[in-house]
Amino acid sequence: MGEEVKSLVVEEEMGVVESKEWYLVSYAPHGVPTTDHLKLRKVRLSIAPESIPDAHVAIEMLLFSVDPYLRGRFTGTLDGLYFPQFELNQVITIFGIGRVKRSNDSKYEEGDIVLSASFPVAEYCVMPSSEIDAKIDAASGISLPDYLSTLAWLGIEVVADPKPGSNVFISAASGGVGMIAGQLAKIRGCRVIGSTGSDEKVRLIKEEFGYDDGFNYKKEEDLDAVLSKFFPNGIDVYLDNVGGKMLESVLNHVNKFARIPLCGMISQYNQVWTEREGVRNLLNLVGKEVRMEGFLLKTHFNRFGDFAKEIEGHIKEGRLKPKTKINFGIESFLDSLNSLFSSSNIGKVVIQVNKA
Amino acid sequence: MGEEVKSLVVEEEMGVVESKEWYLVSYAPHGVPTTDHLKLRKVRLSIAPESIPDAHVAIEMLLFSVDPYLRGRFTGTLDGLYFPQFELNQVITIFGIGRVKRSNDSKYEEGDIVLSASFPVAEYCVMPSSEIDAKIDAASGISLPDYLSTLAWLGIEVVADPKPGSNVFISAASGGVGMIAGQLAKIRGCRVIGSTGSDEKVRLIKEEFGYDDGFNYKKEEDLDAVLSKFFPNGIDVYLDNVGGKMLESVLNHVNKFARIPLCGMISQYNQVWTEREGVRNLLNLVGKEVRMEGFLLKTHFNRFGDFAKEIEGHIKEGRLKPKTKINFGIESFLDSLNSLFSSSNIGKVVIQVNKA
Repeated sequence: MGEEVKSLVVEEEMGVVESKEWYLVSYAPHGVPTTDHLKLRKVRLSIAPESIPDAHVAIEMLLFSVDPYLRGRFTGTLDGLYFPQFELNQVITIFGIGRVKRSNDSKYEEGDIVLSASFPVAEYCVMPSSEIDAKIDAASGISLPDYLSTLAWLGIEVVADPKPGSNVFISAASGGVGMIAGQLAKIRGCRVIGSTGSDEKVRLIKEEFGYDDGFNYKKEEDLDAVLSKFFPNGIDVYLDNVGGKMLESVLNHVNKFARIPLCGMISQYNQVWTEREGVRNLLNLVGKEVRMEGFLLKTHFNRFGDFAKEIEGHIKEGRLKPKTKINFGIESFLDSLNSLFSSSNIGKVVIQVNKA
Repeated sequence: MGEEVKSLVVEEEMGVVESKEWYLVSYAPHGVPTTDHLKLRKVRLSIAPESIPDAHVAIEMLLFSVDPYLRGRFTGTLDGLYFPQFELNQVITIFGIGRVKRSNDSKYEEGDIVLSASFPVAEYCVMPSSEIDAKIDAASGISLPDYLSTLAWLGIEVVADPKPGSNVFISAASGGVGMIAGQLAKIRGCRVIGSTGSDEKVRLIKEEFGYDDGFNYKKEEDLDAVLSKFFPNGIDVYLDNVGGKMLESVLNHVNKFARIPLCGMISQYNQVWTEREGVRNLLNLVGKEVRMEGFLLKTHFNRFGDFAKEIEGHIKEGRLKPKTKINFGIESFLDSLNSLFSSSNIGKVVIQVNKA
């Protein structure tokens, strides 16, 4: 044991780190993924200055954002359209925050805290600096996981852009996106209703996240009736995190010019698409002149500065209260991902890979 | 006989006209509507100057635009969301062109040619001048029916806004909207493929409307395969006129940031929505960041001047060749409407109510 520790220390001094990483063994078209599909392996990686090519950086991973869309990236070809599929035997990638350990790009220096939508799910990596999407001001006074809520901000502030008084509905309301989106819509002066998967979560979104009201969709047999009850004046914005039957029901309650930012569709990931329940009333989009729009982080990173400034202000001044479930160690990745599909989480699921 | 004619002439001199109009007797949730649902009646209408209230006009109808969406306005409450339903025992309304016979609004004078998305389906009417959406320059040199193609123009120029070289797909390509939309996309420098319901129409869209290519969807068992064949580089714009299975198939071929203007969904009108085939792959909208958007004429009439100027230029300079099927007399309304659902038409279906 002593020998091994000693040799590792020596290696790190020489610029070699040990790094565990998750790679894809086989696609999983159905159900939740297991270690038959994703496996952890250990590699040794040189991060010595001479090992970093031009315009590359060595990164020590700090935090990963665990989001449902990841599931869609290894369903195999049938779902190839949804997201580019991860390649077999390759390390999968993720949205996260890391610290620059070495830099061969004058824009970055050791110690910089950076964000990327395409970090490898690894403890360390050497990657092109062009893959870095933003730099974070580590002295801003808000905690690093809060910078992983960009998608929720984009959904409300950029894609939906609701007016004060708008009727906003958010599904998966206590989840990583919903929790922040609901609060941002409230800050904008909207009336915000959420759906979630337990009575406890309904209580939570009202008491902790400031939703005007909410319901437990698992206890509602008639979604149409419950939407009629909560939206007597119709729905102006629906931030969709679930898809399927909920989306279909919402389309029977949309107001003129409603906007539907599509963040993800958690009800849809674990089946091949031909087995999914179809949405039968898209015609309502025509009559109500509704805009339904998918959006991804990577496209909108030019807005990261606006997001950071706004979110820092809201958090410091107590208007926004994020809730984060932190799992520790890269080993927790598979369980963290699968926990999203069991309704067991509240707030955003984050993995702390290395200490910030 | 002689007596009756004489009295009518006298009445018209006095300012009374006879006007036939279509009114709704009962809703038709299924199938094509019949005279059980829509009936023609004859009324006498005073258009004498003293009969026109302030800010009202008397209109002699010239042309009606016969469009599939009309069908959605009398399916009854189950479809109430798609469009406001026509009221029972009321005259139904339509997009058309009329001539001002009397005006009690200084903005309009006798002889003005005007356009409204909400004319009654009648030979004459007295209506608030606020219901007029635009005035047409009768001396423009293009024919009046060509001003009824506003929806096609909106779909391509305003909602889709494709770049030169974009891959554009248009369903119901030889119909009233498709015929113009395809030509406008070609004028913009796009590659345009159309689907339509007969080999003859496929020939027509290529030879007369300048589509790059097209297919007869009735002869294709595998829409996915045919879209793969015609769009090896994916679809950037899909102007949807049909909905249902075609829309679903398109969603398996969309490119990043594709736009899907929803004009209408002709495959969807004659069933109640719960009986329709659902679209199962909306998740593709997320991964490809697609925008799908319904739009209606009424909302965009502020752009009518741009439309008119552009369409007049295209037609006069021979770039755009509209094809119009003109049916004569208000009596033809029900048959004209139903003809849209039998794939029997080529080009835009228009009713000439009175002579221009």
